[in-house]
Amino acid sequence: MRCEVVAVGTELLLGQIIDTNSSWIGAKLAEAGIDSMFQTKVGDNAERIASTLRTALERADAVVVCGGLGPTQDDITRDVIAGVMGVELVRDPTLEERIRDLFESRGRTMPLNNLRQADLPVGAYPMAQMPGTAPGLVCPIGDPDDPHGKVIYAVPGVPYEMQAMVEGTVVPDLMRRAGESFAIRSRTLRTWGQSESGLAEMLGPYHDELEASGRCTLAWLASGMEGLKLRLTAKAPTAAEADEVLAAETAFLEGVLGDLVFSTDDRSMEAVVLDLCRERGLTLATAESVTGGLIASRLTNIGGASDVFRGSVVSYASEVKFDVLGVPVGPVISEEAAVAMAEGACRVLGADVSVAVTGVGGPTEQEGQPVGTVWMATCVDGEGAALPVRLPGDRERVRQFATISVLNLLRQRLGAR
Amino acid sequence: MRCEVVAVGTELLLGQIIDTNSSWIGAKLAEAGIDSMFQTKVGDNAERIASTLRTALERADAVVVCGGLGPTQDDITRDVIAGVMGVELVRDPTLEERIRDLFESRGRTMPLNNLRQADLPVGAYPMAQMPGTAPGLVCPIGDPDDPHGKVIYAVPGVPYEMQAMVEGTVVPDLMRRAGESFAIRSRTLRTWGQSESGLAEMLGPYHDELEASGRCTLAWLASGMEGLKLRLTAKAPTAAEADEVLAAETAFLEGVLGDLVFSTDDRSMEAVVLDLCRERGLTLATAESVTGGLIASRLTNIGGASDVFRGSVVSYASEVKFDVLGVPVGPVISEEAAVAMAEGACRVLGADVSVAVTGVGGPTEQEGQPVGTVWMATCVDGEGAALPVRLPGDRERVRQFATISVLNLLRQRLGAR
Repeated sequence: MRCEVVAVGTELLLGQIIDTNSSWIGAKLAEAGIDSMFQTKVGDNAERIASTLRTALERADAVVVCGGLGPTQDDITRDVIAGVMGVELVRDPTLEERIRDLFESRGRTMPLNNLRQADLPVGAYPMAQMPGTAPGLVCPIGDPDDPHGKVIYAVPGVPYEMQAMVEGTVVPDLMRRAGESFAIRSRTLRTWGQSESGLAEMLGPYHDELEASGRCTLAWLASGMEGLKLRLTAKAPTAAEADEVLAAETAFLEGVLGDLVFSTDDRSMEAVVLDLCRERGLTLATAESVTGGLIASRLTNIGGASDVFRGSVVSYASEVKFDVLGVPVGPVISEEAAVAMAEGACRVLGADVSVAVTGVGGPTEQEGQPVGTVWMATCVDGEGAALPVRLPGDRERVRQFATISVLNLLRQRLGAR
Repeated sequence: MRCEVVAVGTELLLGQIIDTNSSWIGAKLAEAGIDSMFQTKVGDNAERIASTLRTALERADAVVVCGGLGPTQDDITRDVIAGVMGVELVRDPTLEERIRDLFESRGRTMPLNNLRQADLPVGAYPMAQMPGTAPGLVCPIGDPDDPHGKVIYAVPGVPYEMQAMVEGTVVPDLMRRAGESFAIRSRTLRTWGQSESGLAEMLGPYHDELEASGRCTLAWLASGMEGLKLRLTAKAPTAAEADEVLAAETAFLEGVLGDLVFSTDDRSMEAVVLDLCRERGLTLATAESVTGGLIASRLTNIGGASDVFRGSVVSYASEVKFDVLGVPVGPVISEEAAVAMAEGACRVLGADVSVAVTGVGGPTEQEGQPVGTVWMATCVDGEGAALPVRLPGDRERVRQFATISVLNLLRQRLGAR
C-alpha cells in the first residue's frame, strides 16, 4: 500500500510556514507499514493542485491532501478534488447543521462563507472527527465499491484537526483497504545518562532480534533536553494485544537499561521530577547560575507545578551567590559553591529538596575552566551533594544538558523506580 | 524564472527529520523574485529521484536538489544527476585535493569513501562555497553555453552548508540566467505593542504604494516572543544602492511606527534591553511569578549577559514573594504585589533596574481572576511602577507575551530611541 502526501498552501512554498504536517503524516504512515514515496508542496492554484493529485494517484494507491479546506475563496481543495473525481460539489445538509451548531455553541455568528465547508464532491463523505469547522473528506476515485479503488483523503492544515482525522480515519481506512486487520500502537520510553551510540551498543542485539521477530519495532532519537527517546511500535490483531506486546518489551527494556529509563509514557524529565516530589509530599526549589532560569522555566511550563515548585534564585552574578544564597566567597565554579547553592535554595525558598547548577556556558572560559565545565548539586534533608560534569556543545546545548542532567540527579537521589 | 526544490532523504518521508531546508530555499527564491511552484520530498532511491528531477525540469527552468551528497553508498544524488544529464561521473583532481586538505587541516584521517565527493558529472562544476566536505554542484542540462538552458543545482542537506551555497551561488546564478543584474538585500524591523491587524491597518496604504513602486517589498510575520517582524526587501543595481533604499524605508517606518519599533537589525527584545542597560551602565534583575524564570532564561541565553544581568528571584509560591522579596501579605495578582516584586528584585539582587511579572498563566483562574490577567512592573531609581494587561492564549503564550511585554515596558521607561 502506497500513500502520497500533498501539502497545499502558497505560504508553504514561500517559507512563511514550515510544513511539519507532511512529516507527521509520513511518520504515522510508516508506523502503519504504509509506504510514502513522494511528498509534495504546492501553492493555492487549482490547476497545479489538480495535476499534483493526478500524478500522485498514478503512482500510489491513496493520497492525503492537507490544507485548503477553510472557508475563504483561497480554499480550493474541495473544488479541485471534485474536478479530479469528475463530479459536482453539493451541499451536505447534515454538515451544514453541524457547522451552524458549532458556531452557535461558541456563541458566535457564523459568517456565510463557512457554509462552503459543507460542500462535498458527489460520492465523497465526511470524516467522523471534526475538532474545528473544517470537515475532513474521504473521496473514493471511480467506483466507490471497488475494494481496490484509489482514494483521496482531504484534511485541514491546522495540525490538531489534521492529526485527529489521520489517526481516527485515514490510517484505519488505509489499513482496511490494505486488507490489514491489525492494530498499531506505540509507546515512548525516555532515557538519560547514556549517549546515542552507547545505547545503540547496549541494545544492538536486542534491536536486531526484535526486527527479525516482527513483533515490534524500535527506533531511537536523541532529543536534547527532552532526553533520548526510544520508540516501540507494535502491530497485533487487536489494540489490547498490541498493548500487551508493548508492555512486555517495555519491561524488558527497563530491565536492560535500569535507571537510565526515566519515563515509559513519554513524560519529560521535569514532569517526572514534579510527579516524584508530589508523590513524596516534597516541595522543590532551584538555584541556577549557568542555566539562568531555564530549569525553573521548564518546571513552571507544566500546569499544576505550583503545588510542588516554590521558586528559584537565579544567581547569575557571584555577589548574588554570596549574598542571597550564602555561598562562601571564593571560586564559584566549584563543588563548594554548588553544594552551598543547593542548600541555600532550600533554606531561602523554604523547600524540602533542590537542584543547583554552576558552570561555564561560554562563549569564553571562566575561572580558568573550559566551556562546558558544570557542577551540579542536589539538596535532600538539608544535605547538599555535588557532581562535576563536562558537557559538549555550545552555550545553548550546555544549558539544556545541564538542566536535564541535574534534574536526573535529583530523581536518582530520591531513589525513583 | 521558475525553480523547483527537491529534498532527498528517506528520513524526511518517515518524519524523522522535518524538511526545513525547502522552506528556507523557498523564502530565498521568493526574495529574489523567483517562483517556486512545487517542492518535493523523495527518498534515497535512484529511480524516484531521477523521475522527480525530470518532472521538475519539464515544469521549471531550474531545480535545487538538496541532500544525498555525502560520502556513503546511500548518497546517490551525484550519480542520479549524471544519469539525468546523460553523462559519466569523473573524479575532479582539484576537488580531491581540496577534500584531502580539509581533513589534513583538521588533523583527521580521510576515509577513502570521502573521495566519492570529488566525483562530478561531466559538464558540471563545483560551487565556490564549501563549508563542509560536500561540494555543491552546478549542473547545466544540455548545451552549457545556451543562456536559456536549464540547470540543476545540487547542495548538501546540512543547513549551514546548503545556506552558504544557495546565497553564494544558486540565487546569483539564477538571477544572472534571468538576465537580472541587480542585488537583493533585506532588513528586519521588529515591533511590539500592536497586533498584526493593527499594524496592517497602520501600514496598509504605505504597503500598497511600496509594492506598486517596485522599489522594495514589505512582509510581516507575528513571531510570538520574538515580536512582530517587518521584513523589507530591496532590489537595486548594486548592494550599496539596495542598502540605501532599505535605510530610507526603515527611517520612514520608524517615523510612522515610532516607539512600536524596538529593533531595526532583527535583534530580540532581550538583546535590545541588555544593550540598552549596558550603554547606560545599569545592572538588571528580574522577579518572576507567572513567567517562572523564562525572562531570566531568555536574557542569559545571550552570551555576555553577565556584565548586565545580576539574577532573578523566581517567586512562584506566595511565601517566597512575601519572605524573599518583601511583598506585603495579601493578594499576589495585584498592582501592589507587582511593584513590591520589582523593587524587591533591585534590593535583594543589588541591581539598578528590574522587571517583575505576576499573573494567571492557567490552566485555572487564580484569586478570582481569569487566565491571562497579568500585572507587569518595572523598577528604575528604586521606584516601582506597574501596568495591568490581559494576554490571550494558553499558558505557554501568556508566559511568552508577558516576557516580551514587560521587557518592552522597561525599554520604554528607560526612554530608548
